[in-house]
Formats: sequence, structure tokens, C-alpha cells
Amino acid sequence: MLFMVEMIVQIPQSLDAELVAKIKLEEKEYSQKLQREGKWRHLWRVVGEYANVSIFDADSNDALHTMLSSLPLFPYMQIKVTPLANHPSSIVQE
Amino acid sequence: MLFMVEMIVQIPQSLDAELVAKIKLEEKEYSQKLQREGKWRHLWRVVGEYANVSIFDADSNDALHTMLSSLPLFPYMQIKVTPLANHPSSIVQE
Amino acid sequence: MLFMVEMIVQIPQSLDAELVAKIKLEEKEYSQKLQREGKWRHLWRVVGEYANVSIFDADSNDALHTMLSSLPLFPYMQIKVTPLANHPSSIVQE
Amino acid sequence: MLFMVEMIVQIPQSLDAELVAKIKLEEKEYSQKLQREGKWRHLWRVVGEYANVSIFDADSNDALHTMLSSLPLFPYMQIKVTPLANHPSSIVQE
Amino acid sequence: MLFMVEMIVQIPQSLDAELVAKIKLEEKEYSQKLQREGKWRHLWRVVGEYANVSIFDADSNDALHTMLSSLPLFPYMQIKVTPLANHPSSIVQE
Amino acid sequence: MLFMVEMIVQIPQSLDAELVAKIKLEEKEYSQKLQREGKWRHLWRVVGEYANVSIFDADSNDALHTMLSSLPLFPYMQIKVTPLANHPSSIVQE
Amino acid sequence: MLFMVEMIVQIPQSLDAELVAKIKLEEKEYSQKLQREGKWRHLWRVVGEYANVSIFDADSNDALHTMLSSLPLFPYMQIKVTPLANHPSSIVQE
Amino acid sequence: MLFMVEMIVQIPQSLDAELVAKIKLEEKEYSQKLQREGKWRHLWRVVGEYANVSIFDADSNDALHTMLSSLPLFPYMQIKVTPLANHPSSIVQE
Amino acid sequence: MLFMVEMIVQIPQSLDAELVAKIKLEEKEYSQKLQREGKWRHLWRVVGEYANVSIFDADSNDALHTMLSSLPLFPYMQIKVTPLANHPSSIVQE
Amino acid sequence: MLFMVEMIVQIPQSLDAELVAKIKLEEKEYSQKLQREGKWRHLWRVVGEYANVSIFDADSNDALHTMLSSLPLFPYMQIKVTPLANHPSSIVQE
Repeated sequence: MLFMVEMIVQIPQSLDAELVAKIKLEEKEYSQKLQREGKWRHLWRVVGEYANVSIFDADSNDALHTMLSSLPLFPYMQIKVTPLANHPSSIVQE
Repeated sequence: MLFMVEMIVQIPQSLDAELVAKIKLEEKEYSQKLQREGKWRHLWRVVGEYANVSIFDADSNDALHTMLSSLPLFPYMQIKVTPLANHPSSIVQE
Repeated sequence: MLFMVEMIVQIPQSLDAELVAKIKLEEKEYSQKLQREGKWRHLWRVVGEYANVSIFDADSNDALHTMLSSLPLFPYMQIKVTPLANHPSSIVQE
Repeated sequence: MLFMVEMIVQIPQSLDAELVAKIKLEEKEYSQKLQREGKWRHLWRVVGEYANVSIFDADSNDALHTMLSSLPLFPYMQIKVTPLANHPSSIVQE
Repeated sequence: MLFMVEMIVQIPQSLDAELVAKIKLEEKEYSQKLQREGKWRHLWRVVGEYANVSIFDADSNDALHTMLSSLPLFPYMQIKVTPLANHPSSIVQE
Repeated sequence: MLFMVEMIVQIPQSLDAELVAKIKLEEKEYSQKLQREGKWRHLWRVVGEYANVSIFDADSNDALHTMLSSLPLFPYMQIKVTPLANHPSSIVQE
Repeated sequence: MLFMVEMIVQIPQSLDAELVAKIKLEEKEYSQKLQREGKWRHLWRVVGEYANVSIFDADSNDALHTMLSSLPLFPYMQIKVTPLANHPSSIVQE
Repeated sequence: MLFMVEMIVQIPQSLDAELVAKIKLEEKEYSQKLQREGKWRHLWRVVGEYANVSIFDADSNDALHTMLSSLPLFPYMQIKVTPLANHPSSIVQE
Repeated sequence: MLFMVEMIVQIPQSLDAELVAKIKLEEKEYSQKLQREGKWRHLWRVVGEYANVSIFDADSNDALHTMLSSLPLFPYMQIKVTPLANHPSSIVQE
Repeated sequence: MLFMVEMIVQIPQSLDAELVAKIKLEEKEYSQKLQREGKWRHLWRVVGEYANVSIFDADSNDALHTMLSSLPLFPYMQIKVTPLANHPSSIVQE
């Protein structure tokens, strides 16, 4: 079951630089783990913004929320979730 | 080069039903042709709306505009284009 | 799996009055069928508006879209879907 | 008398971590007390957000405001209230 | 129990002039009946707009929705309801 | 001459708690003085928000601005003013 | 007492061309009468739009609403009124 | 003196097809005349929309409004004008 | 050449009170100098807000930007500029 | 391939003044380097704002994102990118 997830990152200036670096590294590792497991299907940068557009594959709304709220950057992101369905004109079922 | 394209379809009530059916059929054929050519990479329905989220692969902005403005439903759609770039945490280059 | 669904009804003035009455009757029957099946969990009127707030229970995004796009009033409604998850402070699992 | 209440939590970074933990604990206890009393009828997490959608049952607007403004997280939340009425197609009176 | 009700009137150009005059007359009579009963407490024109700001006194959300949806101009109005509570600094209880 | 005045209070976290208490006390006294003089005609709390809806009676725009900008909480409020006129369907002239 | 009044003109395509011409002529005459009386103090075109920014001088909110609702184009305009006060840095009292 | 001008074209379905073709031809000719005169400096299509972004060079606000309101498509466009100034980091004066 | 300029002042709480007083004094002097020179034609307070509506007369966009960016409060204001043209119904050329 | 890029600069008050001066100098140098290389085609100041409108020429979305995210002011800017295509009425191909 697919969801479009749009994330905008807003790290406060006051956060310690080392802490930020550590969080970003953990974010990257966690993100790549989910990608390898096939749960984070696509991850694109929005041109000119510290933001991304992603496609997630989750078994349920609860599973998706667990994945998103476990993101190390979760407290510093604005997230919008759009549930997706199969399109009748699509040539694949995904 | 990838772009997120969000399309909302708004067909006026006054349009002839047969004409609408014909346009939708042409739209489907044209859409599937572009999908088979690898230019319309993904096509999903937004749940609960007469709208879709799509990922296009185009060689240039001009090529993308040509594809979109040739859609049979183009005069009846509101379209928003977001240019995408490779994300440094993505495990694939797409 | 629960979803909040907000529906705003906008029937064009030009639509035939008998047709409107027929569509509304079918809408009511279809809505009550889904309620009896436990799929349309709650249905409330928004005070002062021709709109409702609903809670749907669906097995998947595709199942939800099928239910919503089959609503007889679907072509005349603006619909917004919000996926819901279990809240850690809730005393029930629903 | 039912109300949809949407709450978005925004705790400032500068707040002391222990204080935050204490407030959250009190919030949970207070919330569960209201749920057991049947006043906070439903409580759902919005997927991907530090926000919830709730249904409250209150005897009056004043009673609802008293409940909401007594929430330990009240100073750190953005709250939107929508009064609900019985829907003519609903198969239950709630 | 008080509610602020904001109404914006949008009568379509295509509506028959005599019908419009008839609806407006019925609206005025119905409005004045509710005012005399103490249910429509205040009614003001927004300067420069075909809109009003009103204060309603209703026993419940259902009672308010019944009053508002019975307005002869209801199908041609955009209505927004804001529930009001007693203010701790107010010198009267209203 | 009547005006609807909507006030949203936003006191910064960093403000000294004693100072805040002092300002709120002065605000209450000043507000009740204006109410007793018949200039602040109505004062209601918006349910679920640290905000109010008020009706002011002022001799002129200048007189209204003087009243509002003298509010002790003025530097911490977002204020929106809507000029009101007599409504032709109102059964009273107010 | 001064007010900024912003007017956006939206004449429906379906209106008879002769009628439109007649209304515009009456609008111009009425507007110039109010300007000569000193009530419509300034009238400027917004560049690139069928809209204007105006400054009105009115004895009361009721007087202003009477002037605005008597505009021949009133049914085809979206109007926004902003009450103005004397500015402490202004070198004139106007 | 430069201005960014954003134009969104919205031709009503009801307009006669031949008339539309005639207006578009006149629009093109008028636009190219202004381009040759150096007054319409740049003209770009917004990808995926029936809209353009343009840079105009005008001697005054009045001159710009005269040019824009003379566009054959003016009654069917939504136009937004942004005045531009020389940027201190620009390597050219334009 | 006239422009409507809307300014909203937002001075951060953290700014030193003496510095703020000094900036405001310089702002007043600079503003009155421009008024005496006929460049800042009108200056009105928006009722209930720390904001103003102004009319500027400038020889060019560059001249206007120089005036505005030289305002002592410029770093603490949100400014919106609307270019104005002569209105065909205005009885004066201004 | 051209893109309109709109940048709004928002430097936090808390940033060290010397650091800000250094960043602005680097921004200017980097900007002028890109201008000389023909990649940053146009750069205009928005009148009355600490913002600019720019036209970039980039070989790809990735190339554009690399240029923008390398701007020394990037962490302090809000950026919006609009892809542009050739306009059929334009007399030049740019």
C-alpha cells in the first residue's frame, strides 16, 4: 500500500552543530535501511529546497506512522502524507 | 531528469457526455504510450479525489511541457510541476 | 485501518431537480449499506454546512478509493482523506 | 453534543526536557480520565504528524472550553473546534 | 449557548429575479421570527459586502444546524460557525 | 458605530512569568472599565483557543485604534477589525 | 473618517453587453459625484488588474456601506474595507 | 524600468471557438510587436500550465497598465505585477 | 508615479529597548523628511494593527526601493508594494 | 534550460554580525561567478523586499540544485523554483 510523503526539514539555528551532524548521519542510515527493505520505495530531493518527496510502502497506517515518527529528524520536520491508490490507466500494478 | 507532476481533473458539467468519454479514452491511450516509452514513470490515483500524482522523465523542460500540453484532458486539468533531483541518501540513482 | 474523510457537497444549480433527488436517495442507501457493514464507522454533519466528517475503516488505500469513488454524489463532492493511526494515549485500540 | 477537535502540538525547543516529560505524562493521565468519563469519545493520531483528531462529547460550549483549556499541553497546542450535528443518513444517533 | 455565525450570500446570476425576491422576503421573515424568539441574538451587516456577522443562541449543535439549514437562502450561502464560551474578563454572563 | 474585533493572544515563552501575570491583571481591569463605559459591548472566548471575539462601539476609527493600542496585551496580540453596519433585517437598531 | 476600500470587478461573461456598458456609465457618474462631494477621496487603478484602490471619507460605517452598496457595479464586485486612523508620524491630519 | 508580469489564461468554455482563435492570433501579433519594440523583454511558458512569466520594460506604471489592458486576452487573464529594481550583486544594469 | 505600500512592523522581543526607541525616532524623522519632499504622499495607521498603508510617489522602481530599504525599521518590517495607475473615472490626475 | 528562481532572505537576528557580513560577501562573489559563466542569467531585486527574482540556465535539475544548495545564504533562504519552457509567441529562442 503506497503513500506519498512530503518532508520539509527545519533544523533550529540554536541546535548544537555536532548533534545536528550526528542526527543527519543516523537519519541517512535509517533511511537506507528502510530503502533496502523495500519500505521506502523512492526518495527525491525537491530542487532548491531542504525537502524531499518520497514514496512509502506500508502494511497499514500504523506501520507508516511508526516508520515516520522513528525518523531521527522527525522532531525537526513538517510531514504531509497522501494515500495513493492504483490508477486505472497505469500499465503496472504497484 | 525527473519531475513530480500533480494533476487535478475538472471536467465542466456542460461538456457532452460522449465527447467526455472519447477524450478519456484518448487520454488513457496517450498516457499508456508515454508509460511504455519510459517517459511517464509512475502514475498513482490520489485516494478520494479525481486527481493523480505522477513522476515524469523528460530530457528538458520543453520536452515535458510538450508532453503535458498534449494530454487530451489538458484543457480540463490543473497541473503543478515540481522538479526533482537526486537525493544524497537515496540508494539508487534514478 | 481508519481514515478521516471530509466531504463538501456542491451540486450545480443547473442539475435537474428529479435527478438530484434520485442521486441523494441512492447516496443515502449506499451510505447506510456501508455503515451496516462496519466500513463507514461514523458520519456527522458539520453544523451550518452541506458537508460531513466521516470515519472509514478500510483494508487498504485501494479499498477506500473504491468505496469513495462509488458514492453517487462523488462527482459533486470535494473530498479530503487523512490517514489515522492508533494514539498512544487512547484507552481503546480502534 | 459532539465536537471534532483537531490538535497540533508544538513544544518549543527551549523547554526543559524534564518539564516536557512531566507535562506529557499529566496530559496522558488527564486525557485518559476524560476518555473513561465518556467525554473524550475518540482519539486518533494523524499519520506522520505530532497531531491528533478527536471527538469530544460536551454539555455546552463552556464545558468544552473548560476541558480543552485544562489540558496540560494547552499552551503548546494549536486547536481547531468544529461543532457536529446528527447526519440524516447516519444509522445511529450519536 | 452562543455561536458566532458568519454568512456570505452568493446568489447565482442565472436565478429568476422574482424567485430571488420571494426567497429574500421569506429569509427576512424567518430571520425576524428567530430574532423575536431570542435565538438570533445579533445580526450585523459587514460593511461593503453582501455578508453578515451574527450571534446565535442555541440549545445544542443540532438545534443550531436545524435553524441554519432552514434559512431560505441556505443553498446560496457560505456559512462558518464558531462556538463561543464565557470570557473570564466579561462583566456579564451571556 | 460598531466593529467586530477578533484578538488572538500570543505571549512569548521567554517573557517573565510575573510580568505576564501583571499584564493580564491590567488587561482585565482595562477591559472591564471599557465594558462598564459601554465601549466594549461584548466579549466572548473562542472555544479551544486563547482568543476572543468582541464587539466595540466607537465614535471613530481613531477612537477605536486608541482603545485597542492601549490594551496592555496589545504588543502580544494579533488583531483583526471588521466594520459593521445596521442590517436591514435586524429588528433592532444597534 | 477614512477607509481604504479595495474593489475587484468580476462581470460575468453572460451579461448583456449593452447592459454592461450602461452599468459602467452609471458607475462612472456616481463615482465622480462622490468624488466631487469629497466622500471618495482617492481612486487609483491597480496596474494590470480590473481592480482599484480607493480612499473613502465617511461619517460612519453605515454611511460607508450605503455608499458602497449603491455602486451600480456592486453586485459584480468583491470589496474589502480597511478602517484607517491617523498615523503619529504623519505631518498632516487627514 | 522593469516589471515581472505573471499571466494565467482562463478562457471560458462557452466562448465561441472561432472568436477564441481570432483573439489568440491578435494576442500573438500584439505580443510580438511589443517584443520587437523592446517593451516586452522576455516571455516564457510556465511548464504544464496555460500561463506565462514575462519581463516588461515600461516608462511608468501608467504605460505598463496601458500595455497590459490592451492585450486581446486581457479579459480572460489573471495578472500579477511585481516591480523590479537593480540588484546590487548583478553584474549588469538592466 | 504612485505606489501603494503596505508595511507591517514586527520588532523582535529580544531587541534592546533603547535601541528600539532610537530606531523609531530615526524612522519618524526620515518618514517626515520624505513626506515634506512630497515622496511619501500619504501615511495612515491600520486600525488595531502595528501596520500602515502608505502612498509613495517615486520616479522609478529603483528610487522607490532605495527609499524603502533606507527605512530604519526596514529589517523589522514586512512590505508589500502595489503599483498604481491613473483611473479613468478619477476626476483628478494624481 | 531555464528556471525562474524566487529567493526570500531571512537571516536570524541572533546570527553574529561579522559572520553575516562574511556570508553576504561570499554570496556576492559566488553569484557573480555564476553570472559570468552564463548560468545565472538574470538577477533582480523585488522592490521593498529582501528578496530577488532570478532566471537560471541549467543543464539538468541536478545541476540547478547543486548551484542553489551551494549558495552561502542557502540555509537562510526560502526558495521557489518554476521550470520554464519556450513560449510559442516569443520572437527569440532562449
